[in-house]
Amino acid sequence: MSAKSEIRVFAPATVANVACGYDVLGFAIDAPGDEIVVRHGEKPGLHITKITGDDGKLPKNPAQNTAGVAALDLLKHLGMTDRGIEMEIHKKMPFGSGLGSSAASAVAGAFAVNKLIGEPLTKNQLLPFAMAGEASADGAWHADNVGPCLLGGIVFIRSNSELDVAQLPAPKNLWAAVVHPDIEILTKVAREILPKEIPLENATQQIGNLGGLLCGLIQEDYGLISRSIHDVIAEPRRQKLIPDFYKAKRAALAAGALGFSISGAGPSVFALCEGEQSAKKVADAISGIFAAIPLNSQAYISRINTKGVHVIS
Amino acid sequence: MSAKSEIRVFAPATVANVACGYDVLGFAIDAPGDEIVVRHGEKPGLHITKITGDDGKLPKNPAQNTAGVAALDLLKHLGMTDRGIEMEIHKKMPFGSGLGSSAASAVAGAFAVNKLIGEPLTKNQLLPFAMAGEASADGAWHADNVGPCLLGGIVFIRSNSELDVAQLPAPKNLWAAVVHPDIEILTKVAREILPKEIPLENATQQIGNLGGLLCGLIQEDYGLISRSIHDVIAEPRRQKLIPDFYKAKRAALAAGALGFSISGAGPSVFALCEGEQSAKKVADAISGIFAAIPLNSQAYISRINTKGVHVIS
Repeated sequence: MSAKSEIRVFAPATVANVACGYDVLGFAIDAPGDEIVVRHGEKPGLHITKITGDDGKLPKNPAQNTAGVAALDLLKHLGMTDRGIEMEIHKKMPFGSGLGSSAASAVAGAFAVNKLIGEPLTKNQLLPFAMAGEASADGAWHADNVGPCLLGGIVFIRSNSELDVAQLPAPKNLWAAVVHPDIEILTKVAREILPKEIPLENATQQIGNLGGLLCGLIQEDYGLISRSIHDVIAEPRRQKLIPDFYKAKRAALAAGALGFSISGAGPSVFALCEGEQSAKKVADAISGIFAAIPLNSQAYISRINTKGVHVIS
Repeated sequence: MSAKSEIRVFAPATVANVACGYDVLGFAIDAPGDEIVVRHGEKPGLHITKITGDDGKLPKNPAQNTAGVAALDLLKHLGMTDRGIEMEIHKKMPFGSGLGSSAASAVAGAFAVNKLIGEPLTKNQLLPFAMAGEASADGAWHADNVGPCLLGGIVFIRSNSELDVAQLPAPKNLWAAVVHPDIEILTKVAREILPKEIPLENATQQIGNLGGLLCGLIQEDYGLISRSIHDVIAEPRRQKLIPDFYKAKRAALAAGALGFSISGAGPSVFALCEGEQSAKKVADAISGIFAAIPLNSQAYISRINTKGVHVIS
């Protein structure tokens, strides 16, 4: 068999919502992330042969597995469901962490299989298949994790239903400090905590901040970015699911963060920072608040990851 | 007296909201607009000596007049309320047109007086004084007309209360077709027709479209601009105040408009178009729908006006 008979890919964690961009904005970070290995197999069809790092929680039936659904959806589209493919899934980030764990698996599944069979589709064309995988886990149809995980960088989603996405430039010195406290929040619970209706005034504030954040990112205006990182819709409701959220927020801002909010549906939190040193200091400040509870946490420091999912071997 | 003893300024009409940017986005056009003349006077204090084009509707008492309030607020800030200044106001656009008529008067008043007394403040610094004039007419505090009228171009308002505004580049070939049908809508009525609460889903759609529009404007992506010009909040409620609104919209889109919606609180409508020829065709299509009602209307074709208020003599 050729060197291409086995492919290992890495799909990065992502921070969705980004404060004012509920369901429409996300960015990728360098670590953590999931790895998926695919190879040609004798037996027709897609088979998940091995899963690690999931504490036995994930089903090996591809039709019930996030990465499997994404890959199957792609193979079905290409009329190649009989092709013999073996898949190994190595979960390297926690479930329900707010870091786009299911999106990473879905993206990795679709991307790896596409590579293995000779790359018939572009990354952009893989978006709907990765979305199908993510939706099978999450029940919702939003691209704010899948988009940046697949494409890399900062991704804005004009329309989730139309999958109309735009990539934004990442200011060179923009760093993220992401801290994951060791508790689990189900996306479903975090969604149900949100109101069905919101005051028009809040919508206008959120729209103002989202627009300000986009202008700030594009114009590399750190002051404007900082003034714009406010979420008046989800954060006030979801913060109660995260112990000492406001203490952590105050500590992050006091340590120099441009802004701080919840990553995705939580419990991970993130801060945007100007420079690596600032991000380190901010991550330490946040971790310190959780440690005092006491609550274990993992901190990640990263530039915006502009690569997205990629082959590692 | 020196040549600078009398100054005439022109303040342009503006399109606020721009579909998905309710209260946070506006742009200036070349015409119509208001003119204000100021000169040094013998009698201490600000005096409005002449008003034309208002059908006798505007008060000459500066404290009750939009342009007067803006000028007085500025003079008060500078400790110069005793300075003798005469002001003439020439209204050249209709009241309640949705073209930022009161904003134009307020901007012209503050800008003209600032020029006359030697320009102690920059354009940006005049924003709160022009806002005070506009608020005296309108009762609300939003900068989506005053901002672009003063600064020119496309202006995004991150926060109305903080007056945090950003200027966006205007794609070179972006034209506006603005049509004012001869009916009057009071801003107050158009505001009261809006709900106090909106579905979260609509807020997310609006945020997606607003972000898409900003990305499209900055990246000169006419396709993205076109896909983003949708208002799911104000337009569905306010359209009933404008006769045959949806007929006009369909005609504009059929004639090639990138998008179409209500200018400010209406009754003026606007379309964004790629190129002058397209804008002319679209304006004719819209005017044709109003003419068939029958309803008189005035059409204006303009590039985005990047100058804003300026001295004309």
